Amino acid sequence: MRWVYIEDIVGHSGREVEVRGWIYNKRSSGKVRFLLVRDGTGLLQGTMYSTEKDAPLFLTFDALTQESSVIVRGKVREEKRAPGGYELEISDIEIVQIARDYPITPKEHSTPFLMDHRHLWLRSQKQHAVLRVRAEVVKAIRDFFDGRGFRLMDTPILTPSACEGTTTLFETEYFDQKAYLSQSGQLYNEATAMAFGKVYCFGPTFRAERSKTRKHLIEFWMVEPEVAFATLEDVTELGEDLVLSIIERVLGKRRAELETLERDPKPLERVQKPFPRLKYEEILPRLQEKGSTVKSGDDFGAPEEAILSELYDVPVCVSHFPAAIKAFYMQPAPGRPDLALGVDFIASEGYGEIIGGGQRIHDLALLEQRIQEHKLPREAYEWYLDLRKYGSVPHSGFGLGVERTVSWMCGIKHIRETIPFPRLLYRIYP
Amino acid sequence: MRWVYIEDIVGHSGREVEVRGWIYNKRSSGKVRFLLVRDGTGLLQGTMYSTEKDAPLFLTFDALTQESSVIVRGKVREEKRAPGGYELEISDIEIVQIARDYPITPKEHSTPFLMDHRHLWLRSQKQHAVLRVRAEVVKAIRDFFDGRGFRLMDTPILTPSACEGTTTLFETEYFDQKAYLSQSGQLYNEATAMAFGKVYCFGPTFRAERSKTRKHLIEFWMVEPEVAFATLEDVTELGEDLVLSIIERVLGKRRAELETLERDPKPLERVQKPFPRLKYEEILPRLQEKGSTVKSGDDFGAPEEAILSELYDVPVCVSHFPAAIKAFYMQPAPGRPDLALGVDFIASEGYGEIIGGGQRIHDLALLEQRIQEHKLPREAYEWYLDLRKYGSVPHSGFGLGVERTVSWMCGIKHIRETIPFPRLLYRIYP
Repeated sequence: MRWVYIEDIVGHSGREVEVRGWIYNKRSSGKVRFLLVRDGTGLLQGTMYSTEKDAPLFLTFDALTQESSVIVRGKVREEKRAPGGYELEISDIEIVQIARDYPITPKEHSTPFLMDHRHLWLRSQKQHAVLRVRAEVVKAIRDFFDGRGFRLMDTPILTPSACEGTTTLFETEYFDQKAYLSQSGQLYNEATAMAFGKVYCFGPTFRAERSKTRKHLIEFWMVEPEVAFATLEDVTELGEDLVLSIIERVLGKRRAELETLERDPKPLERVQKPFPRLKYEEILPRLQEKGSTVKSGDDFGAPEEAILSELYDVPVCVSHFPAAIKAFYMQPAPGRPDLALGVDFIASEGYGEIIGGGQRIHDLALLEQRIQEHKLPREAYEWYLDLRKYGSVPHSGFGLGVERTVSWMCGIKHIRETIPFPRLLYRIYP
Repeated sequence: MRWVYIEDIVGHSGREVEVRGWIYNKRSSGKVRFLLVRDGTGLLQGTMYSTEKDAPLFLTFDALTQESSVIVRGKVREEKRAPGGYELEISDIEIVQIARDYPITPKEHSTPFLMDHRHLWLRSQKQHAVLRVRAEVVKAIRDFFDGRGFRLMDTPILTPSACEGTTTLFETEYFDQKAYLSQSGQLYNEATAMAFGKVYCFGPTFRAERSKTRKHLIEFWMVEPEVAFATLEDVTELGEDLVLSIIERVLGKRRAELETLERDPKPLERVQKPFPRLKYEEILPRLQEKGSTVKSGDDFGAPEEAILSELYDVPVCVSHFPAAIKAFYMQPAPGRPDLALGVDFIASEGYGEIIGGGQRIHDLALLEQRIQEHKLPREAYEWYLDLRKYGSVPHSGFGLGVERTVSWMCGIKHIRETIPFPRLLYRIYP
């Protein structure tokens, strides 16, 4: 008999098949027994019928507990009332293991309890939906860049120096020297962009920040495109197209998951380009009017992002920040060296910053000056300076955080559920 | 005028376009000047014609050096003799930066010199070809698993315990505890496979091994599928299909790159399934006959892999290794508890092991015993043991190393060129 996955069951109507999975739920109704089986790709209702209460199949049914593993066999039948529209007329149940006292019962559990049992919590329908959306978001991102001729460049995790300051770095011994876990592939991508024109890296990044918010993970995935000869405006448009492409894919392919998550799709459907373009100095007075205590020269934080979400019901692009609060490599605005040609994308509905990027300094003397001003060890940046010696060109790029984007797509307020095994302040188990 | 990438030039024949890139080469021939421009997506020949030696364009031409950055404008024209079949009749050259003394000249350089200048070396045609093959291999792998309904699960890099021993781990402070860089996502994937049926992770992995061979990187990328209810035989077939799918993609889409690399495609074209299946005990005497000094109970090393490559001109699957030399989680063979249901795929042509995997222990008592025998800290494995308590099922998976696979596809003997910024023993710069 053929082993089929539940998501493929539609092609097997009328046939005898075998389904391998776990008991999700069961119930009795007179002479019928209903089993709800999950196999990781979907849920399937199995039915058994007998006039005798102690028919062998019924006795097996009685023994089954939540999350017991089974192989069930039977005939597939269309049944509109069943979840998914098909059911299995069970002729045989092979028990693989009876699960005793599965910890996650249908009752409410505390978040710390669920996080301690993350390895089992992943089996729930909600976590399924979130992680299927995540996988779709990742695929949408890769398809977007591959489809536009960007070359994937896997940049290193172990690096000899810091991209943006040294206070939030994980350090390790690398044989006879020190190494740090990468916070961004950007500097390396600037080298590969000069070699390949347009590139992206996509991997895990690390910030050893002692902050406990619902928008931060210690370990998170980021996609970072970098384009030679591109300006701030070019990559702002690229970011817009990327965000739209992700939304379109999720709405097109993951409607069922959004429904499971009770995520209203309308705020996503509303997103169109161009996104509002706001300059830091223009938007500052409006934020202050709305109650923000941010002062000129300050970076925006969660309160400012919240106000922006009230002012606009689509993502906004904030640019031209004070250079002093931005990274050392940011290109100054023409005629306004106190402003940086950087852009942040603030998601709608309060999901915060999802993209940060901008134009990089391409002038050697200016970059040398910045490295000195920021007291960075010049010898670690020699190779980075080389990029400004040998055919330097204006270039720009950005980073998009996967988990925040998934939070936004799913409409879930805490980022910890958007990755299989979240790494949080003081949490590294399981 | 429209900025076009060289790889898209074919659609612009007869039109005026702008190409932005770097000088790859130049030469003169009477009244004609030839510029070879690279933009990361390809090489384009530009021509200029004048009867006057000091025509303004010719003076600009004279000033250009290798890797100077330029914007060239002109009309695209079909020209069979030009690389790529098109050339640009240059009407304007805008110099962005003149590169002085580009370190990588056409003469031979030592490997340490090239590795020190990896950020520039990436601009060469050979490195281009290798990394384009790499990007294609990665895409082929993702398409393979996505197309078969495997769910992508990004497993954590920062982990509280070791997957296979602790001697080759990078350690870091994780706030108030210790963390280690992941050597494999497998254990986590066993949890996600019980939730999603069939999953894969694909990310960087780390081994702090003090070995300096041409087949080892300190940081390398690995794809790891894991399938609930699958046996050793199931995942051996899956691995075969994966390898064939990668080969097919590279031969289909990266012929030009293989040609640049002077890689004979025949040994790849020859690979068909099924691959020879060899059991450890069967093949051991043949290896010894051929001069190997390996003794019964020893693991195979480079000499044994080399002999296997001589015996077979396709990849081989070696299985049923002595349990004592394999990881603690490996399922013993039925009736032969001294043998493990593990399989290694040895690539043809001497490229070594590209896949390692097998069936995992699903019995709780046996796994507990193994954890004790291997003196592993039980508390770190509690969640892993849970998977054997709550609906345990037989399951199997493997890991395929990306860089070794790329080496094999490209026919290059040292793995260091298969990743943009290799991490080797004592090398972490650039």
